[in-house]
Amino acid sequence: MKIVVDAMGGDNAPFATVKGAIEAIKSYGIDIILAGNKLIIENQLARHDYIKEKIEIIHCSEEITNEDRPVAAIREKKDSSMAVALRLVREKKADAIVSAGNTGALLAGGLLILGRIKGIDRPALATPYPTVDGMSVLIDGGANSDCKPRNFLEFGIMGSVYAEKVLGIKKPSVCIVNIGTEEEKGSEIVKEAYKLCKTGPFNFKGNVEARDIPGGYADVMVCDGFTGNVILKLTEGLADSIFKLLKEEFVKNTLRKMGALLLKPGLRDFKKQFDYTEYGGAPFLGVKGVLIKAHGSSDEKAIKNAIRQGIKFIENNVIDDIAKKLSV
Amino acid sequence: MKIVVDAMGGDNAPFATVKGAIEAIKSYGIDIILAGNKLIIENQLARHDYIKEKIEIIHCSEEITNEDRPVAAIREKKDSSMAVALRLVREKKADAIVSAGNTGALLAGGLLILGRIKGIDRPALATPYPTVDGMSVLIDGGANSDCKPRNFLEFGIMGSVYAEKVLGIKKPSVCIVNIGTEEEKGSEIVKEAYKLCKTGPFNFKGNVEARDIPGGYADVMVCDGFTGNVILKLTEGLADSIFKLLKEEFVKNTLRKMGALLLKPGLRDFKKQFDYTEYGGAPFLGVKGVLIKAHGSSDEKAIKNAIRQGIKFIENNVIDDIAKKLSV
Repeated sequence: MKIVVDAMGGDNAPFATVKGAIEAIKSYGIDIILAGNKLIIENQLARHDYIKEKIEIIHCSEEITNEDRPVAAIREKKDSSMAVALRLVREKKADAIVSAGNTGALLAGGLLILGRIKGIDRPALATPYPTVDGMSVLIDGGANSDCKPRNFLEFGIMGSVYAEKVLGIKKPSVCIVNIGTEEEKGSEIVKEAYKLCKTGPFNFKGNVEARDIPGGYADVMVCDGFTGNVILKLTEGLADSIFKLLKEEFVKNTLRKMGALLLKPGLRDFKKQFDYTEYGGAPFLGVKGVLIKAHGSSDEKAIKNAIRQGIKFIENNVIDDIAKKLSV
Repeated sequence: MKIVVDAMGGDNAPFATVKGAIEAIKSYGIDIILAGNKLIIENQLARHDYIKEKIEIIHCSEEITNEDRPVAAIREKKDSSMAVALRLVREKKADAIVSAGNTGALLAGGLLILGRIKGIDRPALATPYPTVDGMSVLIDGGANSDCKPRNFLEFGIMGSVYAEKVLGIKKPSVCIVNIGTEEEKGSEIVKEAYKLCKTGPFNFKGNVEARDIPGGYADVMVCDGFTGNVILKLTEGLADSIFKLLKEEFVKNTLRKMGALLLKPGLRDFKKQFDYTEYGGAPFLGVKGVLIKAHGSSDEKAIKNAIRQGIKFIENNVIDDIAKKLSV
């Protein structure tokens, strides 16, 4: 199995991408292609011990930054690490791509270079979402701001295959994120989507209100990319704010400081539940190839875990399974 | 000043509504009308000390429940406490209404009985939102699932008058909730809304990403009612889940239990920041009359604080101010 890593993508590249790739080779025994500037990558590699035969460098003269406009970047920077890595997947020279680079460019590249699975109108980001009850999947995590009702059905199909095959959830429940539990609630599009999902080839459980998301009410939460992005970013922001507030309360006097000291391990365990690096990246489902989007601020651990996700995808034939479900 | 309370509305009515009204009279010296079943209200009043001349009971033979369909309930249950209370405001026999009853029915009643301010297409719920930095306003909190771009402009106008006059925020900043900070981000409707808001009669600050909501980046956060409702309910659900998780971590062993004991006051202060009863209700802005929607699970303190909000509304001529800004 061979996975290509966009070595230049992400806030901590190339340090995190190279180190994460080396760690993944050690843990999972796979082969890695590092796409990016050869000199810079070799410089990073020289700092570590690694199995030389397991790593191939493919030199790219360009780089896509977060400031680049997505579609233009993919079209014009043909020798960028991201575009080159995507072409390697299309040409079957790699089994999957992992990138922490410009999200918009990566999604545009997925569409333009890999293409869509037959029957899928809109590929979507399937984001693992930690809940009190384990892991759920939020789809679409932000690829499509405007969605049609049929897209919700596609998201339900793709999300449930992913939840079952990669996250190991048996007969995952699928819910539409809505502002009430009743069928007639919500926007016009969501109401139409409900009618379609009722007969979808998955375990449809109705609507989930946002209040019940953190409790793990639904295994797969289906929504448009606008709503999904708001949910993900609000979760991130709220967790941050709550930790900040707690910290402030806990240093207000000596007694509280003592208490906080005793609770430090508890707080650390707690914080871990909200740590995205534990879960690796989010797959872009619906394109013809395994594409894992890692968080822009991924460290080496997050990159390694994103690679692990890619491996599970390949081993479990997720893409074939989605295609099969669509053709029924 | 006279405020009518829907005595039968809410999970804790009539106990909380009657007690909250009595407390409000004591604190603010206003007059109260209690609309509802006379016998039941008198029975509640008998338990408390209160100034008799300050309370008037208006008997209503019907009641709107949470199971009732909003528009039908308002149209058919003409002698319900909610419908009667709304008519008292329309007939200027009361200066404001406070209700913790069926949200849909209350909003429908606001539209049908009070009517809209000239120039407002869609009245909206303006929900106070506690942040690390103080209080913000989220508008629309859930009245309109589907919105047109011009509604965002109206929400900005109403929200900024409310933030300034009732919450006391000087020159409040107004932002559109979006999935990126750049002007060209988001859904088609939100992009159009941005263009309109740029020239709106308020302090427009661009987009706010959901990640920056809890930090208090924007004083007034404008969005459609679907997004607003998701934000409010997710905040509620996440805060609940985080407290639950913290509690679990804090009783795992004796040391942690001791630490938690020392931190109890800190945790209490912290929890208070997320306590909706501190802030009272959310006004339904854009109708011809002061309408305060209190949380369905309001206790007496929340009802009292919702009444306090109504008082501030009246004292500061919020509705006249909104009408004036619209006519410019």
